[in-house]
Amino acid sequence: MSTTVAAYAAPAANAPLERTTIERRALGAHDVLIDIKYAGICHSDIHQARDGWGEGIFPMVPGHEIAGVVAEVGPEVTKYKAGDRVGVGCFVDSCRECEYCLRGQEQYCTQGMTGTYNALDKNGEPTYGGYSTHLVVDENYAVRIPEGIDLDVAAPLLCAGITLYSPLKHWNAGPGKKVAIVGLGGLGHMGVKIAHALGAEVTVLSQSLRKKADGERLGADHYYATSDPATFEELAGSFDLIVSTVSAPLPLDQYLSLLKVDGVFANVGAPEEPVSLNLFSVIGGRKTLAGSMIGGIAETQEMLDFCASHGFGAEIEVIPADKINEAYERVLASDVRYRFVIDTATI
Amino acid sequence: MSTTVAAYAAPAANAPLERTTIERRALGAHDVLIDIKYAGICHSDIHQARDGWGEGIFPMVPGHEIAGVVAEVGPEVTKYKAGDRVGVGCFVDSCRECEYCLRGQEQYCTQGMTGTYNALDKNGEPTYGGYSTHLVVDENYAVRIPEGIDLDVAAPLLCAGITLYSPLKHWNAGPGKKVAIVGLGGLGHMGVKIAHALGAEVTVLSQSLRKKADGERLGADHYYATSDPATFEELAGSFDLIVSTVSAPLPLDQYLSLLKVDGVFANVGAPEEPVSLNLFSVIGGRKTLAGSMIGGIAETQEMLDFCASHGFGAEIEVIPADKINEAYERVLASDVRYRFVIDTATI
Repeated sequence: MSTTVAAYAAPAANAPLERTTIERRALGAHDVLIDIKYAGICHSDIHQARDGWGEGIFPMVPGHEIAGVVAEVGPEVTKYKAGDRVGVGCFVDSCRECEYCLRGQEQYCTQGMTGTYNALDKNGEPTYGGYSTHLVVDENYAVRIPEGIDLDVAAPLLCAGITLYSPLKHWNAGPGKKVAIVGLGGLGHMGVKIAHALGAEVTVLSQSLRKKADGERLGADHYYATSDPATFEELAGSFDLIVSTVSAPLPLDQYLSLLKVDGVFANVGAPEEPVSLNLFSVIGGRKTLAGSMIGGIAETQEMLDFCASHGFGAEIEVIPADKINEAYERVLASDVRYRFVIDTATI
Repeated sequence: MSTTVAAYAAPAANAPLERTTIERRALGAHDVLIDIKYAGICHSDIHQARDGWGEGIFPMVPGHEIAGVVAEVGPEVTKYKAGDRVGVGCFVDSCRECEYCLRGQEQYCTQGMTGTYNALDKNGEPTYGGYSTHLVVDENYAVRIPEGIDLDVAAPLLCAGITLYSPLKHWNAGPGKKVAIVGLGGLGHMGVKIAHALGAEVTVLSQSLRKKADGERLGADHYYATSDPATFEELAGSFDLIVSTVSAPLPLDQYLSLLKVDGVFANVGAPEEPVSLNLFSVIGGRKTLAGSMIGGIAETQEMLDFCASHGFGAEIEVIPADKINEAYERVLASDVRYRFVIDTATI
């Protein structure tokens, strides 16, 4: 029997979010009931709540940066018990059978992962995200939040953290490597922290020098303004890896010129519209233009353990639920350092 | 003292090639004098002779697929002796000091490699290519052509062969890997032979099925027409590696959809004009859009040894020098299977 819980939802595309109630499914044998404590606000929440990608399912309860405490477990749950601190990220299910699921890359499931919200689960029921007081999820799609990291700063790690951790690890950011992070926002600030903790020499490439002091405090060794053409001359051929977090269309040929031979430009943000590229920008220097999308469950756990062992979470501003709509406007205006986190006790 | 030798040159941009004489430099301490036997015709010869990239140096003697026999060696040459079978590819010098030269990636030299033709050497003298009877080159920029491979079929390996071998090796074409070659021309046919010899399962993606029997004879396991939309549906998510040899602008998003997660689309051909790309095509599936440019000297030697040990060279049509202009027209009309090779005894 389902349970009625409080949530904040967008009743329709472009309508402000408002308090409502939703049904959470009855606890299945392998499910855990999570008492949500905090939910981060990701830029893609706004995009989806405003139906920027089309085909949005309304009412929509956004939120895929979820941190909470296990309240109850189904009879066959083995991984968690009541009282455990857990997180849920961008997906709550996948086929569990394809080669990608089997190797822990559930985010690339051939059947398509089941999004934490704005998706249909295996029973055809819409999924609802973390702007809510409770969530029921299969234990295999939850991760443990280690001691030593508070739940509020842990929440954004479930999307922003893993989105940066995965490409940084995959393309070997570490000692002796020069890594640039493009954009110092919710994603980018986690990129700086993680790349620095991995031991790489970190450069922030930001439109202006406005956040320079912040970037250095977060772990950047260097900070350049991309609005200054001299930046591209000075840094030509410098980087082993550039991770772009921006969703604006960048002059890719210029950015690719900043890579060393065999360097990688990895996109974790991207504009909706196609970008223009001269293929000679990758041919000369055997360069890679790539992308990366969040991370798998095991890798998300690894990321949380990594962040906890280095003693950091996200930089956040905690807000009550009735400030969500205002926070959306501030995110769009880049007026947040660096992630809004909803205190779900206020829902 | 320089030596006057016969050659075929384009006297000016877009002018037909004609017989002429050029000067080859006096044999330096580390130089070898090569009696050129065969020179392949590469599509880029035509491009440069017609000044398609601008800044061409005229008169221009094209040719960077050179096979011959050492006629004489400078006093400090240690690698070769008179009578040795040798080849010269796309470059005849590089800085020899940068990190890329030191690791055998001379083609990505930070100072820029010295092209075999249409370039200026360290003394500011123009370089002249293989459409000629003789060539003087530093021994470090020549490679040995193994016994067991004829000089005529070896010549095209110096550009077409290494251009395909390098990315196929770099991105691990081999047993258990599904590899597609886009375009079955001078480059593509070498891709099929090499990928097959490396043990990969090879698919040709060609505009039509016109050369299907040929492709299969060369080693392709499968052959699809890209003009048929069903090809893209049937092959979605199939390939570990796609190497594109075409210089026409391709619908990259469609081609990227043919890759598995972590798959690589490597360009060795490319259009002059920018291409359009939706970055979500690389983000979903952590895919790589990359490029590759010929190969280093040691790798070129490795490629020649590999081809010889597998008993193959290029598929060629030998022509006398007075057919060069006609051959150019036939290359542009894709009317060659698969490489024209000039018998330089006819110059």
